[in-house]
Amino acid sequence: VDYQHVQVPFEITLWIMLASLAKIGFHLYNKLPSVVPESCLLIFVGLIMGGIIYGLNDKSPPVMDSDIFFLYLLPPIVLDAGYFMPSRPFFENIGTILLYAVVGTIWNVFGIGFSLYGICQVKAFQLQDVSLLHNLLFGSLIAAVDPVAVLAVFEEIHVNEKLHILVFGESLLNDAVTVVLYKLFRSFCEMPTIKTLDIFAGVGKFFVVGLGGVLVGLIFGMTAAFTTRFTKDIRVIEPLFVFLYSYLSYLTAEMFHLSGIVAIIACAMGMKRYVEANISLKSHTTVKYFMKMWSSVSDTLIFIFLGVSTIGENHEWNWPYICFTVIFCLIWRALGVLVLTFFVNRFHVNTITGKDQFIIAYGGLRGAICFSLVFLLPDFHRKKLFIAATTVVILFTVFIQGMTIRPLVDLLAVKRKRESAPTVGEQIHIRFLDHLLAGIEDISGHWGQYYWKDKLEYFNSKYLQKILLREYDQPKSSIVLLYEKLERKHAIELAEAGQLGHAPSHPSLLCRGFLCSNNDKTVIMDKTLEDTLNSDVLENIQEILARNLYRIRRT
Amino acid sequence: VDYQHVQVPFEITLWIMLASLAKIGFHLYNKLPSVVPESCLLIFVGLIMGGIIYGLNDKSPPVMDSDIFFLYLLPPIVLDAGYFMPSRPFFENIGTILLYAVVGTIWNVFGIGFSLYGICQVKAFQLQDVSLLHNLLFGSLIAAVDPVAVLAVFEEIHVNEKLHILVFGESLLNDAVTVVLYKLFRSFCEMPTIKTLDIFAGVGKFFVVGLGGVLVGLIFGMTAAFTTRFTKDIRVIEPLFVFLYSYLSYLTAEMFHLSGIVAIIACAMGMKRYVEANISLKSHTTVKYFMKMWSSVSDTLIFIFLGVSTIGENHEWNWPYICFTVIFCLIWRALGVLVLTFFVNRFHVNTITGKDQFIIAYGGLRGAICFSLVFLLPDFHRKKLFIAATTVVILFTVFIQGMTIRPLVDLLAVKRKRESAPTVGEQIHIRFLDHLLAGIEDISGHWGQYYWKDKLEYFNSKYLQKILLREYDQPKSSIVLLYEKLERKHAIELAEAGQLGHAPSHPSLLCRGFLCSNNDKTVIMDKTLEDTLNSDVLENIQEILARNLYRIRRT
Repeated sequence: VDYQHVQVPFEITLWIMLASLAKIGFHLYNKLPSVVPESCLLIFVGLIMGGIIYGLNDKSPPVMDSDIFFLYLLPPIVLDAGYFMPSRPFFENIGTILLYAVVGTIWNVFGIGFSLYGICQVKAFQLQDVSLLHNLLFGSLIAAVDPVAVLAVFEEIHVNEKLHILVFGESLLNDAVTVVLYKLFRSFCEMPTIKTLDIFAGVGKFFVVGLGGVLVGLIFGMTAAFTTRFTKDIRVIEPLFVFLYSYLSYLTAEMFHLSGIVAIIACAMGMKRYVEANISLKSHTTVKYFMKMWSSVSDTLIFIFLGVSTIGENHEWNWPYICFTVIFCLIWRALGVLVLTFFVNRFHVNTITGKDQFIIAYGGLRGAICFSLVFLLPDFHRKKLFIAATTVVILFTVFIQGMTIRPLVDLLAVKRKRESAPTVGEQIHIRFLDHLLAGIEDISGHWGQYYWKDKLEYFNSKYLQKILLREYDQPKSSIVLLYEKLERKHAIELAEAGQLGHAPSHPSLLCRGFLCSNNDKTVIMDKTLEDTLNSDVLENIQEILARNLYRIRRT
Repeated sequence: VDYQHVQVPFEITLWIMLASLAKIGFHLYNKLPSVVPESCLLIFVGLIMGGIIYGLNDKSPPVMDSDIFFLYLLPPIVLDAGYFMPSRPFFENIGTILLYAVVGTIWNVFGIGFSLYGICQVKAFQLQDVSLLHNLLFGSLIAAVDPVAVLAVFEEIHVNEKLHILVFGESLLNDAVTVVLYKLFRSFCEMPTIKTLDIFAGVGKFFVVGLGGVLVGLIFGMTAAFTTRFTKDIRVIEPLFVFLYSYLSYLTAEMFHLSGIVAIIACAMGMKRYVEANISLKSHTTVKYFMKMWSSVSDTLIFIFLGVSTIGENHEWNWPYICFTVIFCLIWRALGVLVLTFFVNRFHVNTITGKDQFIIAYGGLRGAICFSLVFLLPDFHRKKLFIAATTVVILFTVFIQGMTIRPLVDLLAVKRKRESAPTVGEQIHIRFLDHLLAGIEDISGHWGQYYWKDKLEYFNSKYLQKILLREYDQPKSSIVLLYEKLERKHAIELAEAGQLGHAPSHPSLLCRGFLCSNNDKTVIMDKTLEDTLNSDVLENIQEILARNLYRIRRT
């Protein structure tokens, strides 16, 4: 036996296999996943595995390597999140999301940091040696809500789209803030004296890290879209480019100390519509399914490793510090959400209700990002205490909050996600309203979101599409695309119904099925006529609006 | 800039990106790939890249790591080959393939080894220090036809299915022989004396390596099929199991010094039909496309690295040795094919024509496997000569033979692959003939391939399907599946035609399209009726045959 030769790939494959089999195992018992979130179950499996390894070897099991986490496990999840991000609610709430992500995170970092420093001053707790800077450093890593944990829990509870995007968007975009604050405090810890200049440099850095990430992401996204223009003859490698370019955007951002998460999201959101138009339908299915598969595997591995790494001897237990960390995390997040939402609601018609605020505050789960960051801390004598506190916070949020959030959502009767896709009629009306609002904003001279959206759409159809799309002369409107999709789906259903009718080999049944589908078809056809009419009318309206309003503005 | 942190994944991604972009580049000029095989172009790109690296650094560019090749680049290609292997022609010609792969390879190894040893005895060439064992070792690595190179060239020339499977099947299955002979001669080189026992052990080892590989592959394949029984609730990770289990089969086989290539092919061919029945249609598309994509990337990387590794200072040039190696490779292969085909044709009705024999002999391309094996040789003073000879043989076969084989196929008017898929009628008749021949073999007491096929089919439907399939009570016949596929395809075409008719927003066009498709539909329906009738008749025939013939045999 030559085990060493194949060790690395063999062990990786085995770990992935174990994770996947554990997932299958949960789903065999249908009742379990409906009560306990999958993430909890996976951490539990990890804890057991870690216990076994600890028991057999009598030493701590291997800790999840931060490099492996940030370079290999995190990108697929973020790519999946970015690629399937519903862009409409995201951009509609971008202001609120940024407020939560930037101001909220800073609020939490300083809130937790200073109040923990206050706790450290109590002599009875024997924590006087933990400096303010160390507390702030700890605050910066414990304050950030984790996208992986949030996604794992929120995907299962199906709250309404706005609530989901607020929590999830915040968890993604706070990465820029976390990166800056964490690195800032870390370098402060190593500096002998801190000048005021350094603090201002830190504030400036935040913009560089965030906007730089967006820029890197968009550049790679546009390049990806441009590349897929030329893949018509080799459909086989089309999906590859989606993965390669987004991964490169992440790595490039990380290389320049920018926010990799922000970069990969910008890349995915930027390239999506162009790539989808350029690549074949089957390539697109491959991209979609493979992305889902990959992120699901990463997710599973992260939670299992989280469990495994928890077991071991790298914890220092201090009741007051750990308990107060959990309490402060809860209190500062709740306060932050309350204060920020107060301001948000003053400027928005569509306010965030009290129930929603509670779920936003309660959904602030911590996860593997904190865990990896705490292991990346420079060695100092209280590192083990920080590791213990982080572990407890993660387990508390994932287990206690993650398991109770579903009953709470039920109890509070939080508005759920609508199950059905919007009808064609609704879509047309939403579009119409968009154009109307853009016109109104244009007249009133207010540069709101509709104004910018309209401008962006104009820029897109005038320049970007011509460069990035293969067949730019026939840009299909989303309604036509939807109709095509419906038609295709219907056709397949028709075929399957015909097939089913045929299976018992009664030709009469087949005939009946066929006649029925005939009728369906006519109904659909009538509807199509209506749609055509509507979209014609719509185009007219659009043209009139555009022509007249631009003229008004110019004069 | 923190490059070191992201170096490994960044460079891997960049290499893959370069390879993919090179591929796109070729296809932009439509004329190029139709004259020069893609593999040649890729090697050429590699040579240029190697030259640039050599010129800039003034030292040899990095050589393709044998571990990376065998552990990461080869498996995807072999998996793809095994999964999409047309099983009918493969099993119909399995005897011939095995004869070429086993006896043919041994013939080539000893032929090339001994004749090169003869060349070494000529004093003028200054090669007396190359021993017989070293020549045989060299022969064992240079004799094996390379599946990657063969696939790359033969996929583009579209020869008939039988010819393709003979060359390609041989290139895959000779791995077992190559592994055994290569390792045998390598250990002989290190042994002080060789006993007769060792030689017999070597012969026995061949069966262990080959059959062991098949066994490992089948075990993993069946486990994979069994696992996909339980993935109904988590469709997302279904494709993963196909990849994980086949990779594990490869690694396990390599770990036990068995033939990894044989194992992965057995695994892929074994699991295919069960996995396909268990997983969803979209998962299946993902598996198919991702496999094709992955193998295409591996393939591209291998040829580029082959080019890059060629440049450098690890060559020792000796005109006679290198020229005679090329000549002997050609001669011994041609002789081997002639002799073996003579015996094959004596026992088969469907003989291999002279033209086919020429293409089989001429299609014996060498590739990256030889290249990796020659670098794995233990250090001795003539290693660089062997590397140079191997490089020349690979470049000669890939460039000269690879580029001329297409004109030769045209010139000789070799029978091409039929373009259209077999009709439903043809499929039914083939099936019918199978059953008939199985019956005849049964009566005549001859245990031929049809007899074994029938037995296997019986075992499959009686036991395997019940264990491995989720819905084993409704095994769909391949004809029903084909009909379903046709129906679905037709429905989509119908939808798209309707869509096209709708695009210029002429309702009348849509109507016309609809009426047309109505007629098509009726035609198809009539045909279906016929099919149903036929398959009913067929089932009757089958039953009668089965019942009566088994009764006859028993009495």
